[in-house]
Amino acid sequence: MSAAEELSLAERRRLYTAALGFAAGTRRIILRKMGGGFRKRLKADASYVTDADLAAERVLRREIRRRFPEHGIIGEEFPAVNVGSDFQWILDPIDGTLSFTHGIPFFGTIIGLHFRGRPLVGIIDQPALRLRYSAGLGLGAFKNGRRIRIRDVPAAALPREIISTGNRVRFVRCGAGPGFDTLMRTHPQVRGYEDCIGHTLAAEGAIGAAIDYGVRLWDIAATQILVEEAGGRYECVYRSRGREKTEYGIVCGKPRVVDWLLPLFR
Amino acid sequence: MSAAEELSLAERRRLYTAALGFAAGTRRIILRKMGGGFRKRLKADASYVTDADLAAERVLRREIRRRFPEHGIIGEEFPAVNVGSDFQWILDPIDGTLSFTHGIPFFGTIIGLHFRGRPLVGIIDQPALRLRYSAGLGLGAFKNGRRIRIRDVPAAALPREIISTGNRVRFVRCGAGPGFDTLMRTHPQVRGYEDCIGHTLAAEGAIGAAIDYGVRLWDIAATQILVEEAGGRYECVYRSRGREKTEYGIVCGKPRVVDWLLPLFR
Repeated sequence: MSAAEELSLAERRRLYTAALGFAAGTRRIILRKMGGGFRKRLKADASYVTDADLAAERVLRREIRRRFPEHGIIGEEFPAVNVGSDFQWILDPIDGTLSFTHGIPFFGTIIGLHFRGRPLVGIIDQPALRLRYSAGLGLGAFKNGRRIRIRDVPAAALPREIISTGNRVRFVRCGAGPGFDTLMRTHPQVRGYEDCIGHTLAAEGAIGAAIDYGVRLWDIAATQILVEEAGGRYECVYRSRGREKTEYGIVCGKPRVVDWLLPLFR
Repeated sequence: MSAAEELSLAERRRLYTAALGFAAGTRRIILRKMGGGFRKRLKADASYVTDADLAAERVLRREIRRRFPEHGIIGEEFPAVNVGSDFQWILDPIDGTLSFTHGIPFFGTIIGLHFRGRPLVGIIDQPALRLRYSAGLGLGAFKNGRRIRIRDVPAAALPREIISTGNRVRFVRCGAGPGFDTLMRTHPQVRGYEDCIGHTLAAEGAIGAAIDYGVRLWDIAATQILVEEAGGRYECVYRSRGREKTEYGIVCGKPRVVDWLLPLFR
C-alpha cells in the first residue's frame, strides 16, 4: 500500500499546510538576519554555519515538536529525535550557507517530510529571491502558490537544454568525475548554480535537468517530491557506502533529459 | 587628459542620472513582458531574440536620441548610429535572453556610456531580481542606490574564493579551454552563473572574480566601470582578431584574486 493510499487527502493537506507555515517562519528569521548581520564559524567538516542557520533550525524544530510531538526530526545542525517514527522531518535551515555568508542570494531553506522513507511533502524556500517551491504527495507542485508543471522536450531539442551541476570536486569525490568532464566537454549549456537553485529550476522546468553529487540527505529532502509532482523524473544515481556520513548523487528534471543524462552517471 | 578631468563632476552626474532613468524604463517593459508573455525567434547567430529585447532596446534608443541627439548608440539588436561621436551608448537590452525565455531570473539590461573609448557610466539592471547596479566615473558604484565596495582578500584565502565563469564552449572558441579546464580541476569553488550575474556578484565583492570569454562589446559595456568604481580590478585578457564580430575575454573582481587568475588566462 502506498503512502498516498495510507494517508487520507485531508491528512496530506494538513501536513503540507503545516510545512508551508514552517517555511514562512524561517523566511522571516533569515531575512532579519540578512538585514541585521550574523556571526559565522567553520564546522569540523570545513563548511560554515551561521547563527542564522542555527536560529532557523531551532524554530523549525520547536514548531514541529509543538504540532507533531511524535514525529522524527533529522536536521543538519542538531542531533536527530524520534528516529523510529514513520514520519521524519528532514531539515536544512540554509542550503547554500557559503552563498548566504557571501551575500549571494542563491540559497534556500529545505523542509522535507518523509513517511516510511518515502517523500510526502517538500518545500524549498529561497528568502532572498522571494520564491517558495512546495509540493505534497498527490497535491501537485507549486511556486509561490502557482502550479508548476514540467513540459518534456523532443529528442531533437536535447542538445539545447540547460543543465545545472554542483562543483566538480564533489563529483570527483563520488567517482563521477568522468561523467562531469564528459558533460562539460560535450554539452554547450552547462551552468553551475550550486545548492538548491538548480533543483528548483529543474522542478519548474526552467532548465532541462539538475545533477548533484556529494550531497547529504537534507540537501535533497524536498527535491524528489517537487520534481515528481511537477511531472518530472528524479533518479538517485549514487549512494556512498562505508562512510560515516552517507552522500548521494541525483539527476532530476524533464524525463527525456534525465534519460539522456543517465548513461553518463551510472 | 583623462575623461574625469575633461568632463565636470556635474556633467558626469547628469549622464549617470540619465542612465539610471533609462534603466528604470527598461525594467518596466521587461517586467511587463515577463508577466504577459513574449514572442521569440532564432537569430542568424543561433541565439534567441524576443520582442522584449526589441521593445527594451527601442525605448532606450528613443530616450537617448531625445536627451542626447548627438551621442552614438551601439546596441545588440539594431544598427549603430553617430559612430563618430565622443560619447557612445552601448546597449544590451537583455543580457541572458536564453535565461529570460526559460523563466530563469538571471538576466539583465546592460547600459554603458563610453567617452572616447573609456567607460564613463555603467548600469546592469536585473529586473527579475529587483537589483540595479550602477556606477559613474569618480562617482562610486552602487547596488539599489547603496554604495558597494570590494574588500580584497589575503593570499591565504584565495583557494576558498568563489569564481564564476561562462560556458566552457565559449572559452574553447577563444583558445582559453586549457585555462578553463585547469581552473575546474584545481579550484573547489567554481560556479557557472553565466551572463551578467557573475559580473555584478564580482562588482559587489560577493564572489572573488568573474571570468567570461567569447562575449561581445555590449556584454561587458558596464562591467569595467562597476568593478573599478567598487575598488576592484578589471582586465581584458582576450580580443579576437580577423573575425567580423569582435569577441572579448575578461577577468574581474577582487584585485588579488584577479592577479592570481591572470596566469591561467594569458
